[in-house]
Formats: sequence, structure tokens, C-alpha cells
Amino acid sequence: MQFELTREYIDDLKLIIEEQNEAEAIALMDELHPADIAEIYDELGIEEAKFLYLLLDGDIAADVLAELEDDDRDRFLKALPVEVIAKKFIDHMDSDDAADLIGGLSDDKQEEILSQIEDVETAGDIVDLLHYDEDTAGGLMGKELVIVNENWTVLTCLRELSRQAEDIDEIYYVYVVDDDNKLIGTLSLKKMILSPTSAKIINIFEPDAMSVHTDEPAEEVSLIMEKYDLVALPVVDSIGRLMGRITIDDVVDVIRDEAEKDYQMASGISEDIEANDSIWLQTRARLPWLLIGLAGGILAAMVISIHENGLADNAKLAFFIPLITAMAGNVGVQSSAIIVQGIASNSLGIESTFSRLMRELGGAIINGLTCSSLLFLCNYFFYADSFALTISVSVALFAVIIFAAIAGTLIPLMLNRMKIDPALATGPFITTLNDIVGLLIYLAIGVYFYSAF
Amino acid sequence: MQFELTREYIDDLKLIIEEQNEAEAIALMDELHPADIAEIYDELGIEEAKFLYLLLDGDIAADVLAELEDDDRDRFLKALPVEVIAKKFIDHMDSDDAADLIGGLSDDKQEEILSQIEDVETAGDIVDLLHYDEDTAGGLMGKELVIVNENWTVLTCLRELSRQAEDIDEIYYVYVVDDDNKLIGTLSLKKMILSPTSAKIINIFEPDAMSVHTDEPAEEVSLIMEKYDLVALPVVDSIGRLMGRITIDDVVDVIRDEAEKDYQMASGISEDIEANDSIWLQTRARLPWLLIGLAGGILAAMVISIHENGLADNAKLAFFIPLITAMAGNVGVQSSAIIVQGIASNSLGIESTFSRLMRELGGAIINGLTCSSLLFLCNYFFYADSFALTISVSVALFAVIIFAAIAGTLIPLMLNRMKIDPALATGPFITTLNDIVGLLIYLAIGVYFYSAF
Repeated sequence: MQFELTREYIDDLKLIIEEQNEAEAIALMDELHPADIAEIYDELGIEEAKFLYLLLDGDIAADVLAELEDDDRDRFLKALPVEVIAKKFIDHMDSDDAADLIGGLSDDKQEEILSQIEDVETAGDIVDLLHYDEDTAGGLMGKELVIVNENWTVLTCLRELSRQAEDIDEIYYVYVVDDDNKLIGTLSLKKMILSPTSAKIINIFEPDAMSVHTDEPAEEVSLIMEKYDLVALPVVDSIGRLMGRITIDDVVDVIRDEAEKDYQMASGISEDIEANDSIWLQTRARLPWLLIGLAGGILAAMVISIHENGLADNAKLAFFIPLITAMAGNVGVQSSAIIVQGIASNSLGIESTFSRLMRELGGAIINGLTCSSLLFLCNYFFYADSFALTISVSVALFAVIIFAAIAGTLIPLMLNRMKIDPALATGPFITTLNDIVGLLIYLAIGVYFYSAF
Repeated sequence: MQFELTREYIDDLKLIIEEQNEAEAIALMDELHPADIAEIYDELGIEEAKFLYLLLDGDIAADVLAELEDDDRDRFLKALPVEVIAKKFIDHMDSDDAADLIGGLSDDKQEEILSQIEDVETAGDIVDLLHYDEDTAGGLMGKELVIVNENWTVLTCLRELSRQAEDIDEIYYVYVVDDDNKLIGTLSLKKMILSPTSAKIINIFEPDAMSVHTDEPAEEVSLIMEKYDLVALPVVDSIGRLMGRITIDDVVDVIRDEAEKDYQMASGISEDIEANDSIWLQTRARLPWLLIGLAGGILAAMVISIHENGLADNAKLAFFIPLITAMAGNVGVQSSAIIVQGIASNSLGIESTFSRLMRELGGAIINGLTCSSLLFLCNYFFYADSFALTISVSVALFAVIIFAAIAGTLIPLMLNRMKIDPALATGPFITTLNDIVGLLIYLAIGVYFYSAF
């Protein structure tokens, strides 16, 4: 049932486009879902995409545009005349998708497009939506909703539904407002169908609808919809008037983006990049973190250089430098990942920082003792001639694991309290810090034991 | 509008429970959403939770149970008598939640509970669902759906709806089947409401409903629902008969879990653990990866020991060991994260491995040249007396960055082709490999240049 994109399919399609074979191209597109067509667009040149695009029917064309990756879409919109954008797409799109789309264009182009939209109400909705920051509930919401007054009967509602629902793909809930347009509850379609037509809405609706303010951050919205298993969430202004609704499909993207962002940050990638992005985009996202790592490495070299004489006398000390830095990094990344994910999914609960730290410390002691003892046994036989080395490495490893666990737990918690994204603390940053502190601990201990034994 | 859990709230509640003040406890619970009550349960002792739980009304109690974390739920179910589980919860739950719940219990307890369920149809649905692997479409689906025959009229449908919909919280679609119960399409409630009651379903339904087989992996299901913005997805058996439906709220959890899992794997955490899990659980998930890192460190020590004499003569070579291993790790983690995320979100497209590798190589050359040149400049002044060191470190850094980028790209792609989870390649595993190869390259180059200059 699902469409699978292959090299052959694209090659065939490119041939059809080259021959300007409109009939065949339309037949091919007809079989596909807009999301599949959007996937195909990623693989085409801009002129090829344009040819196909202009053959699509308005509704489909609008859906395809909404499904495109942001950068593909912007590139594509630049290639299309303003009238086509306004007439062919905006008129067929949900207001939130249209606002997203127009929001990415220059102010001049925005105005030009808005002036070409025939339906004044739609244009007004889009202008309203453009005011909101895209990372807030206002930026996520659409204006497509069915609103009924508490004083109506089911029959009036059904009539209004036919009128209002014309432009709306799916209806999950009908929102109930009072005479001031303030949201007072919801009514499910099921309830409406199953109630007598003479019933008054006020007697059958569900009061206490969950809602969010227009300025609620997108991340919060996604946590609320996820926690309460909501398919749609109404958005209200500061005095409770119904402004729009957010649907779960928009929020699914936020959830994936947030989870991916934390992983990317932890991997030292500072912008949201895709595997298919250009070398330049990827370098811009990756090089800064590598430079942090480089600076850390230079600092680490300085730390070691303090002990140059000790190292020259006991070259074996250098053997375990990678082990110490790698373990410091691994433990720090583990600890910080647990905290960052807990913060992201809002599952930290009400446990105090102190008791969290104590538990982390408990785990670190178990892990540290296990690793240090194993290493001790191993070195005791391998480096039988150098007990100073054996004891230094194990003691240092234990100390380093404890430090890395504490730093990995505390730093993201502190950043979060300071309203800084805790994911910043993961990845190259925490690894570098742990490397340097780990080396300081190791070499100090090593030089001490070498002189002691 | 949203509930915020605080230390004070829990303390007050614990007091109320201690006093066995049922009236006050019921009043408090009445204000809360089941998801909030579930959150509170995480903070209570088992006896406290039980006291509260038995006060809840059946529907709410069932919803709370469905919202609990898996381990809390299992612990809790053990504390409750079988009759209570069957009568109070299962009867009020959706079949998919009930199957999830029972699936976690021992076979004996499963049978005992099933035999106590009054409604034979419900018990049958649950038994059916227990057959499916929980990570497949069959394991995700519920049996609550509204099914209509293609030959019915809208009026018959509306009547059937009232009958079938009784146990169903929300209806998003009505599924249309033929006489063999094979899925042939969907009908939106909106369409049903807006059509004349005498209309035949066959004339107004949407054919070609997207569906999945019962054995489709959960991850695939989530990608399909995400890509096509679906709120519900019907599940069919191998001959196309309608077996159940998956709703988006179940899939949202899969999406978050998958994204979190990849991040956890990359951070060296092998089980799905939460920040609040016990020391023991956390250690079990973390220690194995640390042991891999430990083994890698011991191997690295052996690699360095090959060059013990070179190091004793030129102790400065040791200074840059952390820089080389850290950079190898950073680049490898970046490259693999991009591939792993691309695979997880199914956004790799049709680009060939070769062209992907070429692009990665291009980026690695830019990053490598930048980092190596900067390091060269820096060392040229800092270590003016040792040109051999300056040139070795920079040349080695460049080589190491190139290697790490290639390994980080190829290994997850290869694992994926071999049907092994590519996320395995990220984290401690790839870091360790890159450390060792990086050291081999660095020390070989270093010793060569020291003898050359």
C-alpha cells in the first residue's frame, strides 16, 4: 500500500519530464499521496519540479507544498510567479500551513501575495497568524475550526457545521463558545450525532476544555498533547477568547524535531541538518563544535606538558591517557543524556537535585569500583613490573568516573535552572571538560604514586 | 489550565491518605485528569497509591492505569486482587490498553483475569490482541472501531453508530467493509453528517484507505502515520480483512521512544531508562557500555606501548594524544548521528552510498584542513623548538578526521543493510574504534617525523 521511492522511478520520471509528456506525468502523480510527491520533489531539479507542479490540481498542489522540506520549499517558491502562489496554493491551504509558507518569504513578496488572495477572510486569517512567533502555540495553530454557541440546538449546529465545515478536511471536535466568543468547552461529533436534534448544546457539551494560550512555547504544547493524548487542542488569547486550534500532526513534527535536536546537540551538531544537506550546510553545523574540541585538545596538551618531566621518566603513564579521557567522556555523556531526556520529556518529577545527585553518585561508585577493579586485575598481570602505574591508573579512573558523573548531572540541571538549553552541556562541551579534569586528576595521581613507590 | 505537580501537593496528599480521609481524597482526584493522577502515583508508596486508586471511578481508574509507567503499573497490579483488576479496570479499558496491561503479567494471572471478565466479546478481543508481538501493528492496534457495510445507507449507519459507538471514546473515521469484512475504504463523520440519510455508503465513501498489515513493525507504522499525517490507521490481516485500528496517541509514544532510544544508544545507555529509575536499573543499562570503553582503553594502551621507546625519547608526543582521540571521537559521532537520524526518520532518500560518502569526505576535508591549519599555527609558535611535533600532530589530525568521517558514515549504513540497528554503531563503540585507529595513525606519523626531522 505504501509507495517506495527508487532510483528507477526517478529516472523514468525525469525522462517523462524531459519529453514534456504531460498526460503520462499526470497519470503518475494521480496515483500518489501528496507526501509521496513531496518526497519525489527532493530528488528533482527546480525546473523539473516546476513542470510537474503546475500540472497538479489545486488541493493536491497545496498539500505537496505543505509537505516539502523547508529549504526545498523556499527555493521552489522563489521560482514561481506570485499569482501562481496566491491563486494555486494559498487558496487551497489550511491557514497555518499558508502562514508558515508565507512567513519564510521577504516582506515585499508577502504583501504582494496577500494582496492577490481573493478570499478576504482567508487573507485576514493569514495576516493574524503571521504575528505569532513560529515556536509558540500561536505559530502552530490554524484558524480552521467549527465553532458553535452554547445557546444553539443540535439542529442549528448541524446546519452551521455544513456551512463552516466546507473548507475543513477533518473535524475532530466542535468548540463551544459563549456570546463573547470565550471558549467554554467542546462537543464531540459522536455526541452530536447521538443526541436528539432539539437538544440544547449547553446541556450536552463537555465543559472545561483543555486549552493553551497563544504564547505557550511549542515544546510545552507538544508535552501537553502527548501527556493528555489529545488530537486537537484549542488556543485562546489572554482573556480566553478562542483564536484557533492545533492539530496533532503539527505537534508530531515538533516532538520529532525536539528529540532529534537533543541528539544532534549531544553529537556536536548545532543546526537541524539532514543527511542530504549540502557540504556547506553540514560544515557550518559541525565545524564550530570541532573547534571547541580542538581548543579542548590544546588545553589538554598544556595540562600534560606540566608533567613533561614525569612523563619522560615514566613513559608508561602515557599509555592510559586515552583510557582515562574516554571513560571520563563516556560517563559524562551518559549522565547528561539521562538528565537532558528527563527535562525534554518532562519526566524528572519532583525529586530534589540533591537526592538525584546522590543516586547518580551511588551508580558512579558501583560503575567506578567495577571498572577500576577490572583494570587493576588486568594491569597487575600485564604491567607486573610497574605497580605504581597499576595503582595510579585504577585510583585515577575511579576518581574520574565520580567527577564525570557529578559534572554530567549537575551541569545540565544548572543550565536548565538558568533557562539555558541543557542539551548544550552534552556532546563536545562536557566531553572536553571531563577530558581536561580527568587528565589533571590522572597525572597528579600518577606522578604522586611514581614518586611514592 | 495545566496541573503542576509540586512537593507541597504530594505532602498534603500523603497527609490526607494517612488520615484515611476519603472525602477529601475524592475531591482532590475529581479535579484532575487521569494523566495527572498517574503522575502523582509515581511519587507515592504502593499502599498509598492503592488507597487512592480504589476510590476512583471505573473509567478514570482504567485511564490512570493505562497512563502509568510500565514498571509502576506492573508493581501496582501485583498488589491488587484479580477480581478488582478484571471488574474495575479491564471492563473500562480500550482493548489495546487492556492487552498491554495483561501482557505484562504471568500466564496464570492472565488466565485468571480473563476468566473474570464479564463481557465475552471484550475478553475475546483481548485474547486476540495478546497473540501479536507488542512491537508490531497488531500489538499497537485496538479493536474499538466503527465498521459499516458498503451496501448500507447513511441512516442505517447512523443507527449502527449509536450501537457500536457506545464503548468508544472518540470516533475519527468509520471504516467501510465489503461482505467478506475486507476493508475497502473510509467514511468521515463529517461526510456522514453532511450527506442525505438515504444516500448509499458505496456512493459517498472514500475508497483506497491506507492500511497496514498486523505484522508491520511499530517503527514503520509510526513513520507512515507521521508522513501521511494520519490520526488513525486501520490494520488488516494477510487477506485484507479489517482487524483493528491504531490511533495517533499510541504512535506518538513510539516516535518519542524511538528518538530517545537512538539518543540513548549514542550516549552509551542500552535500555530505555528514565532519570528516576533505581541505581540498579541505571547501572545495568550503563555498565556494559563502560566496559566496552574500558576494553577499548586497554587496547589503546597496548597501541601506545608499541611506541614506548619513541615516547620516552620524545615525551611531547604524548601531549596531543587526548586531542587526537577526542577529535576522532567527535567527528565519528557527528557522522554517525547524521546517518542514524536519516535512517530513523526515513529521510535518506535514494542517494547512493558512494555519493553520500563523497559528500561526507568533502566535508571532512574542509573540517580537517581548517582544524589542522589552526593547530599548525598554534603549535608553530608554542612548540617552536619542535617542528617534528608540529607537523606530526597536524598531519595526523587531518588523517584521523578523514578516517573518522568515513567510518562514522559507512558503519551505520552497513549495519542497516545487515538489518542490525545502526544506532549500535554510535556512542562508545565508534568512539573506541576511532580512538584506536587515531592513535595508530598519530603515533606512526609522529615517530616517522621525529626520525625524519
